[in-house]
Amino acid sequence: MKEKGSYDRADLDAILAAGFVCHLGVVVDGTVMVLPTVYGATADTLYFHGSVASRSLVGAPQQTVCVTVTHLDGLVLARSVFEHGINYRCAMIYGTPRQVTEEPEKLHGLQIVTDQCAPGQWNYARRPTRKELAATTLLALPLNEASVKIRTGPPDDGDSPDSQLGLWAGVIPITTTYGTPIPDPLLLPPNLAVPSHISVPDRP
Amino acid sequence: MKEKGSYDRADLDAILAAGFVCHLGVVVDGTVMVLPTVYGATADTLYFHGSVASRSLVGAPQQTVCVTVTHLDGLVLARSVFEHGINYRCAMIYGTPRQVTEEPEKLHGLQIVTDQCAPGQWNYARRPTRKELAATTLLALPLNEASVKIRTGPPDDGDSPDSQLGLWAGVIPITTTYGTPIPDPLLLPPNLAVPSHISVPDRP
Repeated sequence: MKEKGSYDRADLDAILAAGFVCHLGVVVDGTVMVLPTVYGATADTLYFHGSVASRSLVGAPQQTVCVTVTHLDGLVLARSVFEHGINYRCAMIYGTPRQVTEEPEKLHGLQIVTDQCAPGQWNYARRPTRKELAATTLLALPLNEASVKIRTGPPDDGDSPDSQLGLWAGVIPITTTYGTPIPDPLLLPPNLAVPSHISVPDRP
Repeated sequence: MKEKGSYDRADLDAILAAGFVCHLGVVVDGTVMVLPTVYGATADTLYFHGSVASRSLVGAPQQTVCVTVTHLDGLVLARSVFEHGINYRCAMIYGTPRQVTEEPEKLHGLQIVTDQCAPGQWNYARRPTRKELAATTLLALPLNEASVKIRTGPPDDGDSPDSQLGLWAGVIPITTTYGTPIPDPLLLPPNLAVPSHISVPDRP
């Protein structure tokens, strides 16, 4: 099968490692919201920023949320409209987020999130002050309930009668690329070189 | 402000036009799920495939869902960890999806979805049979309740005391690119040329 669910932990880890933005599904005042937010993953925990979600997640009764990480790999163009689709890798994680309040874990979690977005930045940038830490909502979600779906490969109708229609079919690859860093116009000194750790991230 | 909410309809339309995969938030058996799925947008309606969501959306009591479309434009690397962020464009649409059952609207909606993914494919590929139509769940969501958020530009701490730290700050642009079409290995005839409408999509 070209589209398959996976229960392989390595697939989950690879999908999480390949990104840094998830979509968080949460119920706020009775209404579902789907919020993009940055995350970082360790072997057993997904850390993510609370921001808007914190309105309902923090202090309110605990709820099960869904965090989805999706990578688009290709447009699947088949002979028939019906068989069109997307090559993708998707992980959905379910659980009840825990608000991180202790300073050591909060710093650890923020390091995970920061370095997932931009490896090396935690060691380079100015770290959070106590006041900044207090103003940051960080949530932790265990990685023990997850569902993974992956589709790869060509369209599914290559061995169907539609293959005789003389229509082109195949895949248009989709890739996410990182461009040349654009310095802040307010950079001091203005000609400060881009540090070596800020290279174009290599995300498989 | 570099991060702003927008009530400009043109911003919503531009975000929807720039993508073809949304994240659908829906409550299934009491649990939030966030599902990636393809969509297509007209002036007043977002059409999307039901697939997994149809389990709960179709036949069950109607519910308000949230459909989120997010584009990542850049990693914002500030002097301080606290000011790190993402340049992005995000639209969240709220509403109660309507299942499309009449054949003319279903064909119209599928055309919108198909051509949003790959412009021109509706006219090129074999269109759905009646049986395929019956096997397809298509949902329609009105575009009249939406929220848009956009962040652009450099980091926010260029005029803060942190600007004196001598740290590099700026933006790493993120772009989604489309590669050279990969023919299905089962293509007939094997050397069939890629049709001209399947060019690399131009998505601002």
